[in-house]
This record gives sequence, structure tokens and C-alpha cells, in this order.
Amino acid sequence: MDKNKKNDKTSISHAKDEKAQPTELRQDLVTGDWVVIATGRARRPEDFASSKREVIEENPEKPCFFCYPEETEQEKDSLIYRLADGDWSLRVFPNKFPAFARGRSVKHKEEGPYFSMDGAGYHELVVTRDHRKQIAEMNILEVAEIVDAYQERYIELMNKKSVNFIEIFHNHGKEAGASISHPHSQIMAIPVISPYVQLELDGAERYHKNNKHCVYCTMIEWEAEHKKRIVFENDDFIAFCPFSSRAAFEVWVLPKKHKPYFERTADKEKLALAEALQVAVRKIYAALEDPAYNFYIHTAPCDGKDYPHFHWHIEILPRTANWAGFELSTGIEISTIQPEVAAEYLRKID
Amino acid sequence: MDKNKKNDKTSISHAKDEKAQPTELRQDLVTGDWVVIATGRARRPEDFASSKREVIEENPEKPCFFCYPEETEQEKDSLIYRLADGDWSLRVFPNKFPAFARGRSVKHKEEGPYFSMDGAGYHELVVTRDHRKQIAEMNILEVAEIVDAYQERYIELMNKKSVNFIEIFHNHGKEAGASISHPHSQIMAIPVISPYVQLELDGAERYHKNNKHCVYCTMIEWEAEHKKRIVFENDDFIAFCPFSSRAAFEVWVLPKKHKPYFERTADKEKLALAEALQVAVRKIYAALEDPAYNFYIHTAPCDGKDYPHFHWHIEILPRTANWAGFELSTGIEISTIQPEVAAEYLRKID
Repeated sequence: MDKNKKNDKTSISHAKDEKAQPTELRQDLVTGDWVVIATGRARRPEDFASSKREVIEENPEKPCFFCYPEETEQEKDSLIYRLADGDWSLRVFPNKFPAFARGRSVKHKEEGPYFSMDGAGYHELVVTRDHRKQIAEMNILEVAEIVDAYQERYIELMNKKSVNFIEIFHNHGKEAGASISHPHSQIMAIPVISPYVQLELDGAERYHKNNKHCVYCTMIEWEAEHKKRIVFENDDFIAFCPFSSRAAFEVWVLPKKHKPYFERTADKEKLALAEALQVAVRKIYAALEDPAYNFYIHTAPCDGKDYPHFHWHIEILPRTANWAGFELSTGIEISTIQPEVAAEYLRKID
Repeated sequence: MDKNKKNDKTSISHAKDEKAQPTELRQDLVTGDWVVIATGRARRPEDFASSKREVIEENPEKPCFFCYPEETEQEKDSLIYRLADGDWSLRVFPNKFPAFARGRSVKHKEEGPYFSMDGAGYHELVVTRDHRKQIAEMNILEVAEIVDAYQERYIELMNKKSVNFIEIFHNHGKEAGASISHPHSQIMAIPVISPYVQLELDGAERYHKNNKHCVYCTMIEWEAEHKKRIVFENDDFIAFCPFSSRAAFEVWVLPKKHKPYFERTADKEKLALAEALQVAVRKIYAALEDPAYNFYIHTAPCDGKDYPHFHWHIEILPRTANWAGFELSTGIEISTIQPEVAAEYLRKID
């Protein structure tokens, strides 16, 4: 990917015929955090195309770890889906070098004023069969199989000792942190609650207390009615560019009905979920010409408590921005296209 | 920069002679957030060298905007420091395409459940004379002049209408978001308080309530006594790798005495601040062989309230990591070297 094409938000631009445009601070309805929508360089949606991800180098002499898990000495599968002919279509196995390691008890340690604990938990890889076929190119049944695997592993891991939160995510492209080009997702089952999800839990709780309504349902109802930020919807799921998008072409996918827990997704809703996720990813793929992106599931913790006011969802974050000093320091992201304009562009893509 | 050398934290590694090492979850004493220290790939400090930043392309036909601000039609200076011979040594001028635009009133807007406001404020550039000389190569007096400019502009901007918070930051290298190679810092004076600083304000307040002591002073005292994470100290300032470092070789610089407000730094402390900042940056420069980095000041808001329990500081974040799906989703960063090991390595650098 040509980094010059990246959306360098706090950079300096100087072409004589450009004019500074007003910028806007938008508040995240859930967390209260802020983003800046700065369209000052008059970027049109087309300007974000050619955001093609960087290629991950592969050694043609060596077999792919994920095409040949046994031969390359991967850990034993925790899940495998097979085709009628006996070949596998999807498998899940532990990461050999996990960020959270199996089988450890969570030992707490203190060093003077500081607190730490063992990185106990599970770190698994969800690998699909085809070395090249990315989610944007899969059919809905193939994506539904991935969703099935996410759910099946979630349910297995959620009741493990030391697991209080499970993060399922997908890194696509080198800029998004992928180091192996073979498409895969990751599951991390960890002893602490994600700080970002905690902010959402707190925000959802606060909103419900003040408004007697789910904050995510409020957004869904507004977006479904006004349609200007909608990217796609079917009977059970809706995809839209959030009002306070943190990066150009960010898309969220949410169940239309109020549901706190991803793992309770009913079988009959799973095709609708696979469709919404696949269509959203495919539209981003087409609009930005195969960009790097991350997506991840935000669902309620599995720490034994109830979270009735949370509403699980998927956030898709194309790597259209390089967060620099301002974003890292403040947590206020600067996005250079209005989500309404991005959504309109994505809607038009078949 | 060779991206392969980057510290790809959630990636998959497979060399046969490697063994998975235990990982550790460390809690940020101020905010309560978590980081993972995953030394699983047995990375030594030397392994992070050759993290040289990517070169920003320059057009040799065109004059540099920052070498020739008048000729390239930059905005009028808001501050200029001159040498005895009449040439300038440092100047501050508004960004032509600001993320926050001058002279606007903060108009609040509502769209259904959502809330936004004008991006009113100030966005300035702090430019030093030499096109090539980065902070790691400057002498202490040159860095003191930058600190002077930061303070002078802070004091001017803090009382402006609509300004409630000021962020001063420095992007060095393309990966850190710099788009012009000529060294410069940026100042953004904005109407809202940085969400990240708000977390620190809340944490400092909470810690003080429970312990009757500043949380940053607690860290400084512990680090000064035990010395294992210290990088540098002089009479007035201390630099150390934080216990819960979010990236390899992260360094914080803090005044040793309890001080909430950067802008009240006394003249006699400014050389000590310049020294601590310059030494920390120079050691990172040497250890990682001229990496990309960001640094930024976290100081109390200028919204008219008092923040007696906050303790201003500078955070230096080398771009040793590429935050991927897990970090973006959870806010839990994975760092692949213990801060104690990084600090020991930095201490040894002259």
C-alpha cells in the first residue's frame, strides 16, 4: 500500500487552491468520547480508493502453516469442520506463542504500588481452507461457517476457569497487523474485561438509567428511520457507518433486536449475520480496493454477571488512517470523511 | 522502515527452537487499564534495533514549507524567536488546514439522539530552523527553546474563548504520522477535554482519595528508590519506562515535585526539562537506530477548574508496535519486552 495515500489526519497540506473547511466534533453516544470530522482537504469517497493493503511476503520454499497445520507442527485442533470428501473446510487450533497461555492459574503479583497477574487464558486461531480467499470473496455459507466456529469456541471457552472476557477479531492485511497472509481470525479468552468494552458497558448502563432504553437500540432505530448512514440491512441485522466514526469507512454490524450476548445468536439468525458481515466487508473491499482492515466482536463479558443493557455488535475498522500523536495522546480520532458520505458511497456498491 | 522488523504482537511465530514463555498482565496504576507483557519470542533489546523510520519523500524542486514559511504562503507567525544575526531559530504559525479552526464560536448541534459541535479552537505548528536536525541531535539549549515555545503558546491559548484543553505533541517519522520531514511539533487548543487525560484525572483523583497521595508521585518515589525502570534523572525531572508500558521502549518524563500544570514550569526548571526530554529521545534514537516516535504532554485542562491531584508529564511512544485487532478492540496493548529490560538497555546508552 502506498502510504502517501493514507489519510494523514494531523498532517499539513498546502496546495494553493485548497480551502480550509469547518471541522466538527462528534460525540460517541455510548462512551461520551469525541471524534473530529475534518473534511478540510475536500476528500471525496473516490479519493480513498487505491488503499490496497501491503502484501505479506511468503517464502515459496516453505509450506504455509495454515494450509498444512499437521506438517508444520501446529497445536492440536480444538475444532475442525470437514467437507463430505474428508478434507477440512475450517479449523481452530491454539496459537503456539499465545499472548494468553493455557492452563495457568491467575496468580496475582504485587510490586510496591503496582499490580500484575499471569497472562492466563486461551489464544486460538480460526483458519479457513483456501489460502487466498478472503472474506470479501467468500459466499454467505462460508462466512456462516466462520460465525459458527466463533460461537462454538466462545461457548466452550466462556466457562473455563480464569476466563472473564472473550475477544474475537480478524486482522486482514499487513497494516492491520496480520503476519501470515492465509486468512484467519483469532480468539483470545482472558481474565480481565476489555477496558474499551467496559466503557461501552458503563455508557449503555448510564444511557439506560437516563432514558429507559438501550443506547444501541436508539441508534439502530434512528439509523433505520433516517437511512443516511445505513450500508446494508436484512431482517435481523443492520450495518451502518457510526455517527462518530473514528476512521473513514468504519462500519458497525448489529443485531436489530436487543441482544447483549453474541454467543446466544440463534441458528436461524446466523445466515443473516453472515450476510450482513460479508456484504459490509465486501463493500469496503470494493470501495477501497482491497484495503487492510480489522473487525472485532464487542459482546458482554462472561464473568458470571448479567449485562442486560448491553447490545453486542461487530466493528469493522478499515486502516484508512494512521493514528498519530494527537490521537494517541487524546483518544480523539480525526476522520477525514463524513460517515454520511462514506455510507452513501458504500450503499451504491453492488 | 522494514515492517517485518516491527513488533507484531498478535502474530504467529513458528520457529521450532522457540518456546512459548509465560506472559504477564500488568495494570496501569493510574487508569486501571491493562497491558500484556509477552516476551514469548524471547526478544532481546538488541532485536529492536534497525527500527529506522521510513523516509518521507521530498520534492527537490519545491522549497520546504517550513524552511521558507513566507515564500510558501504559510499563515502569519504567532511566535518567532530570532538569533542575534536576524535569522529565525524557531517559529510558530497556524496550520493552514487546521483540525480545529480559529475564530469560531462553539455551536452545539443535535441530530436526533446524537450530539456534535463545531471544531472550534487553534491548531499551530512549532517549527525549528534546521531542516534535518531532529531533537535527538539537538543540544539542550535548542530543546529548551522548543519547551519555551510550547509554554509561551500554551499560556496565550489557554485563556482563549472556547479553549478547555491544550494538546502539545510531536510526530517524528512517517509511521508516527509526520507528513513533512522538517522537524516540527503541533499544538491543538480544543473545546473538549481529552478522553485519555480524563481517565488519568479520574484515576489520580481516585488514588488520592484512597491513599492521600498523588499516584504519579507514588510511582516516581518507587522508581527512584528501586531504579530498575529508570532511564535518566536530574534534580528536577525523572525519566522511566512505565511499569505498564504499552509499547517496547516507551518512556515517561515527569517533574519530580508534584505539579499539575505544565504551563507553570519555572524558568529555572526548564533546562532540566529540556535535558530529560532530550536525553530520553536521544537514548531511544540510539537504541532503536532512529525510529519513528510520538511524544506528547499530558497536563491538566485549562477549563477554569482546579486539578490539584494531577501531575503533568510527557509520554514518549516509539512506534515499535503495530496495534492490531486485539489492541484496537480491547484497549489492552501487547508489548514484547519487559520495561525493566528496556530501561536497563537505555540506561547503558551514553
